[in-house]
Amino acid sequence: MADALTQLKERLARVTDLERVGRVLSWDQQTMMPPAGWKHRADHLATLRRIQHETLIADETGRLLDELRDREGSLDPDSDDAALIRLARRDYEKAVRVPTDLRAEMVRAGAEARPIWVKARSDSDFERFRPALERNYELRQRYVECFDDVDEPYDILLDDYEPETSTAEVRETFAKLKAELIPLIAELENDDIDDSFLRGSFPVEAQERLAKEVVALFGFRKETWRLDPTEHPFASGAGVDDIRITTNYDPETMKSFFSTMHEYGHGLYSHQLPRHLEHLPIGNACSLGIHESQSRLWENLVGRSRPFWQFFYPRAQETFPEQLRNVELDGFIAGINRVQPSLIRIKADEVTYGMHVILRFELEQEIINGRVAIRDVPGVWNEKMHEYLGVEVPNDAQGVLQDTHWASGSIGYFATYLLGTVMSVQIWQKLLDDIPDLEEQIERGEFTALRDWLGEHVHRYGRKFSPQETLRRATGATLDPKPYLAYLREKYGAGVAA
Amino acid sequence: MADALTQLKERLARVTDLERVGRVLSWDQQTMMPPAGWKHRADHLATLRRIQHETLIADETGRLLDELRDREGSLDPDSDDAALIRLARRDYEKAVRVPTDLRAEMVRAGAEARPIWVKARSDSDFERFRPALERNYELRQRYVECFDDVDEPYDILLDDYEPETSTAEVRETFAKLKAELIPLIAELENDDIDDSFLRGSFPVEAQERLAKEVVALFGFRKETWRLDPTEHPFASGAGVDDIRITTNYDPETMKSFFSTMHEYGHGLYSHQLPRHLEHLPIGNACSLGIHESQSRLWENLVGRSRPFWQFFYPRAQETFPEQLRNVELDGFIAGINRVQPSLIRIKADEVTYGMHVILRFELEQEIINGRVAIRDVPGVWNEKMHEYLGVEVPNDAQGVLQDTHWASGSIGYFATYLLGTVMSVQIWQKLLDDIPDLEEQIERGEFTALRDWLGEHVHRYGRKFSPQETLRRATGATLDPKPYLAYLREKYGAGVAA
Repeated sequence: MADALTQLKERLARVTDLERVGRVLSWDQQTMMPPAGWKHRADHLATLRRIQHETLIADETGRLLDELRDREGSLDPDSDDAALIRLARRDYEKAVRVPTDLRAEMVRAGAEARPIWVKARSDSDFERFRPALERNYELRQRYVECFDDVDEPYDILLDDYEPETSTAEVRETFAKLKAELIPLIAELENDDIDDSFLRGSFPVEAQERLAKEVVALFGFRKETWRLDPTEHPFASGAGVDDIRITTNYDPETMKSFFSTMHEYGHGLYSHQLPRHLEHLPIGNACSLGIHESQSRLWENLVGRSRPFWQFFYPRAQETFPEQLRNVELDGFIAGINRVQPSLIRIKADEVTYGMHVILRFELEQEIINGRVAIRDVPGVWNEKMHEYLGVEVPNDAQGVLQDTHWASGSIGYFATYLLGTVMSVQIWQKLLDDIPDLEEQIERGEFTALRDWLGEHVHRYGRKFSPQETLRRATGATLDPKPYLAYLREKYGAGVAA
Repeated sequence: MADALTQLKERLARVTDLERVGRVLSWDQQTMMPPAGWKHRADHLATLRRIQHETLIADETGRLLDELRDREGSLDPDSDDAALIRLARRDYEKAVRVPTDLRAEMVRAGAEARPIWVKARSDSDFERFRPALERNYELRQRYVECFDDVDEPYDILLDDYEPETSTAEVRETFAKLKAELIPLIAELENDDIDDSFLRGSFPVEAQERLAKEVVALFGFRKETWRLDPTEHPFASGAGVDDIRITTNYDPETMKSFFSTMHEYGHGLYSHQLPRHLEHLPIGNACSLGIHESQSRLWENLVGRSRPFWQFFYPRAQETFPEQLRNVELDGFIAGINRVQPSLIRIKADEVTYGMHVILRFELEQEIINGRVAIRDVPGVWNEKMHEYLGVEVPNDAQGVLQDTHWASGSIGYFATYLLGTVMSVQIWQKLLDDIPDLEEQIERGEFTALRDWLGEHVHRYGRKFSPQETLRRATGATLDPKPYLAYLREKYGAGVAA
């Protein structure tokens, strides 16, 4: 008979494998699956989740964790085994409160809502999506009710995406950001930067070529990666050697280029997770906040920087000669960094981006706390867009229906976008300390040292530590909005971007 | 507490769902997965199979089946419930003999062998593939050893693909075929039919257009189907509304056109399986022989017939003007039906095809029975190709490495190709009786009545009955090689094809 730790690992390997199978199925659903296949997919994902949940909450898991309690105390707390037991206990104690039927139903409702959202968004018809959204929120309400002894209901949802992080902590950080972002946005908008060249004709085939070129430059290899078009960009995959990123090409703008770099950052994180832990939960990504710190780093700190475009701008000009032939590098950099309140989060500049996230973070809490009914969500959305960004929402497709998260039941997810953005700057500062010539390397199109540093200081920890502890190990500090605000002020403060 | 039948159904739903998830992963492995992902895929498929097997062989399954024994006797034997219990008992009694580790290992070894085969075939290097093949045969030997009381070891392997069909029965049928096919091949080859127009320049994009056109004509709909290129064509999918067929375009021949029609036949069968049984094993396909009767019917009885080409030949000419402009319809039909011994099974004509199958059917038995060692397989293959078809094998890529089945551990599978071919003609005869104007419909490009008849007389039974019983319900007769031989003699007998 194998010892308790080996048995626990075998049990968790099964849970982890099933989760990764689910990810491939979700990727397939959003890229390859014939549309009518959604019903099968919803059933199959629910079945996988049911088995995963049952395996995790089985009495045997509890028994093994009890048996390991003494041993855990004698292990180096930084060791893989100690982290594994700690994390398994946390996952078990959370999962065991949730009935399997509810867990499976949450997955099914998410998979079922997605095709409805696709149609509702395409017709800009919130009412069509409303029943599916109500169903998903209702299931989350039931999920939240499985837990007692919580400060506020939203904590439970947030914890699924950003573990060991309370709503109150996020609210406090976001309050600091909001206090500075709103005046900064007012200060920076209405400038006379010309970014008209970013709208026009950007043929999809050319965009695809350029997207493939930039990710290849960063480190994408066909042996281990894929890049596919989809409705709403995301990154997924089955493991370190099977990385799948997606993007969405709009023929009227090249903004998907930034989204592709963003997804590359997610992909690289997954690619550099600890290979030897691939069958264990500690081999997964730490949190969505840490994940987002990686994607935002490649999208913004690399992808909207002068050093990068000094290297890459000639390629962009060759690819889109009509649009860019007569635009100088300085004008291009100013244009791609122009601060301008707009409707769509994933196309937002670095300054206004945060307000999109804060809006949905607040709105989700208001729904979960029963202060806003689902039928009133579009109205509240539109009011807040006016209040925070001064933009008028012409229709729900460009408003509350723009993001896919609610359509897959991902409620509690949004805050991680801004948490990750804040962390990305903290990590970047440390990178600049550790690699003094980083910008010169980027000017030469060299990314190996950057990739290796991220692997060594962030990725290799997997999910061994909490997000805050992971950030502390990487940068020496926990979450702090100041470097991010300082970065924005420095980059935009003089009124001349970049 | 649900009753025993409901509990059994829930248990089998889980097994069935996992199997269908595995099919999507296998499809993905052969079409989309980054090559280096094979190791993850092997692990994940093994985990799925392990859970599937454990769920099936659990004591609880046995207990439920015992409890249902009385009830089974009181049910109409043709009812879904009776068939379900009967089939579940059969699956359980077979599976319970096989250790879970072995079952998982068989799946893993198959998934691991595939990328090795792809490379070995591309380099025509059997030795590179040999260890993986030895491993797969060794695991099948261990699988066979789990069973006692069998007439011959190969029965166990064959039964996984063609249930309730013995090696001896197949051998007897194949002996009759062989006795007639060998002289027929000798009689028909060396004719003066010109099929040189079938070799030359067939641009892949044009082939793809034509392939999509023909399957759309037959009944492929984007809402529920996909068609993708792959190394070795196959059909797969997650359920009736998620059908995935594949094909392989060779720029020097249009033979993949026939392979696409073949896979369409498989896809249609899966598409018309009983929807209300999708979570139960009786909702699966009956057997690979029955599956093959459907693919061969569309490939040959439709796809190599005069009525079909009377309708479709103008489209082929428009698509490949260089190759076909100066070829008359009669010459084209004669060319695509030319009997000529050749190296590659999936490109073989209807007369020589059977000998490719018989060869591997015999060879597999010789390996399983220990009369041929794996290292001697290429030599034996080449000798038999000479003996049966009079062709010399120039390299292993065009010889023993040509098919993917051994590379995924599918040993015992091959006979079903010829069984299905024989059945396809039996089914076609009955179709002609039931739809007297079928050929006229095909001449007009109408396939609805054909699809509906197949749905009504073959597909809707799913796996409720044995292959022989399914065939009997469809045609009034069990397996009989005579109609097939008569068809070949009639089609080719006069020396003028079609």
